[in-house]
Amino acid sequence: MSRELVVIALGGNAIKQASEIGTTEEQMKNVDTAAEQIAKISMAGYKILITHGNGPQAGALLIQQEEGSSLVPPQTLTVVGAMTQGQVGWMFQNRLAYHLKKMGKDAPICSVITQVEVSSDDPDFQDPTKPVGPFYTEADAKNHAAEKGWIVKEVKPGVEKSWRRVVPSPEPLSIVEERAINSLLVERVIVIAAGGGGIPVEKGKDGSWVGVDAVIDKDRAGFKLSQAVKADKFMILTDVENVYVDFNKPNQKALQEITLNEAQSYLDDGQFFKGSMGPKVEACMRFVKWSGREAIITSLDKALDALQGKTGTRIKK
Amino acid sequence: MSRELVVIALGGNAIKQASEIGTTEEQMKNVDTAAEQIAKISMAGYKILITHGNGPQAGALLIQQEEGSSLVPPQTLTVVGAMTQGQVGWMFQNRLAYHLKKMGKDAPICSVITQVEVSSDDPDFQDPTKPVGPFYTEADAKNHAAEKGWIVKEVKPGVEKSWRRVVPSPEPLSIVEERAINSLLVERVIVIAAGGGGIPVEKGKDGSWVGVDAVIDKDRAGFKLSQAVKADKFMILTDVENVYVDFNKPNQKALQEITLNEAQSYLDDGQFFKGSMGPKVEACMRFVKWSGREAIITSLDKALDALQGKTGTRIKK
Repeated sequence: MSRELVVIALGGNAIKQASEIGTTEEQMKNVDTAAEQIAKISMAGYKILITHGNGPQAGALLIQQEEGSSLVPPQTLTVVGAMTQGQVGWMFQNRLAYHLKKMGKDAPICSVITQVEVSSDDPDFQDPTKPVGPFYTEADAKNHAAEKGWIVKEVKPGVEKSWRRVVPSPEPLSIVEERAINSLLVERVIVIAAGGGGIPVEKGKDGSWVGVDAVIDKDRAGFKLSQAVKADKFMILTDVENVYVDFNKPNQKALQEITLNEAQSYLDDGQFFKGSMGPKVEACMRFVKWSGREAIITSLDKALDALQGKTGTRIKK
Repeated sequence: MSRELVVIALGGNAIKQASEIGTTEEQMKNVDTAAEQIAKISMAGYKILITHGNGPQAGALLIQQEEGSSLVPPQTLTVVGAMTQGQVGWMFQNRLAYHLKKMGKDAPICSVITQVEVSSDDPDFQDPTKPVGPFYTEADAKNHAAEKGWIVKEVKPGVEKSWRRVVPSPEPLSIVEERAINSLLVERVIVIAAGGGGIPVEKGKDGSWVGVDAVIDKDRAGFKLSQAVKADKFMILTDVENVYVDFNKPNQKALQEITLNEAQSYLDDGQFFKGSMGPKVEACMRFVKWSGREAIITSLDKALDALQGKTGTRIKK
């Protein structure tokens, strides 16, 4: 029985599907589906560290913060990130415990509120592009910018509310709660950490960690997390069983096992979409380069099969 | 140097003062003040487990959920509780790390999203009295009740919006994440847990923990937490240095060290207000009865002095 440690990164869309409005019930149902697959991985003997996106959850919270702003002050983006870690972390620990128990395992599970170090010297602070929160008219967006120091951009030209706040998406540099997470793993606790890419903080002049209004890419944070816990495998779960080249063309091809060099040349060739598959492949490549071990991209329902080498796109040195 | 484990319970009002509107900055500043005192306790050699209230934070979030409800679905009270654990947990771990570092200690800290078991057989489900969320007019309150199955009550007669939703405040029965919390303490991690009294869950028919719309008293949850980790001391921090008898009378007297029997007779005598000091004294009495060890009620700035027996109200067997 393997005691390999695998870091599993799930998208925020695995929690709220695009067709849904995002009630608690809907999200719990989706998390339940994901948790059942993760429970199977645990039953197969793997040690597990889960990380997850929070796009739809933070989006909804930011809208609510804004709509209530005449009555109570909206919290910062950092606090909203912390809130979504509580929300989604709870859902996962709750549903995972259920499925594990059903499968005969009574394992301790723990969601850890996680800060991730970034630097405001990161070039992404020069020209932020990550949209967060509600859509605004140009006039409203510019008012918010003047009042709150936001950077706003037109992100959907041609509609009335085409503007949004944009924030930087800096590189994650370290996992602040690294020691606590490792302590839990040593004690065989299943851990959920760095949700939404983590709460971005930078080193302040007084030595404290200062919250930064930014959003860290969850797959990059997943790699940093894998590094922090010296994971044996890093797996990104998404909508498709395999990464494709020549995607949506007659000659499209599902990738099975590829080397770092092959991944790099596909990437250079522009085979992977920048906003979706590109960052996932890059995060996997970082892991393989660093560890010499395997990284996997596959779909939720194929996760265990892929870990066992039966499917998925597996990137190796 | 003592290696006693102390469970410290702080009120939600230590995080947002009544005179404040509750911006992130204000709350961070208050948490910073509290964290400095807790850091001193850690420096004195105590192992620490922190728990905290979330009344003002959950209140604000419930208003925001409601105000945004035409755009995004409000999450359940359980999810709001989980969110405030993320919010306040982050604030504490962030400011505590800063003060410890300044004092020369680089200790790992971890906020644990915590579920607390309750039973829907609890008598409090028969006649819920704990108000949560916004104030409504009678008509609006009754609409919500009809639509969502809420129980609503008039809580502030004589004003236009005098009605609120009320939920049960059941007894906490166990700390679901007990093992993870103990694992962290074994590894000498400072833990923040069961914020807001914990996320109330009950055992479902299918074996899962089901979220319950309720609010658990944070001092009672603090006692359960003390039990779960076998704490050496349980300390409740509040606005006053001591518990008083004949409070606000010419002969008022600050209590120093009292026995369980003395505490019980003051309680029977109606010396402590039901909504404020009463539950704190009762939670302390439960701890002393169970452990035979000391429980303390004092103010934030006297916390270390009280632990060292110099001030505060100390309840002993």
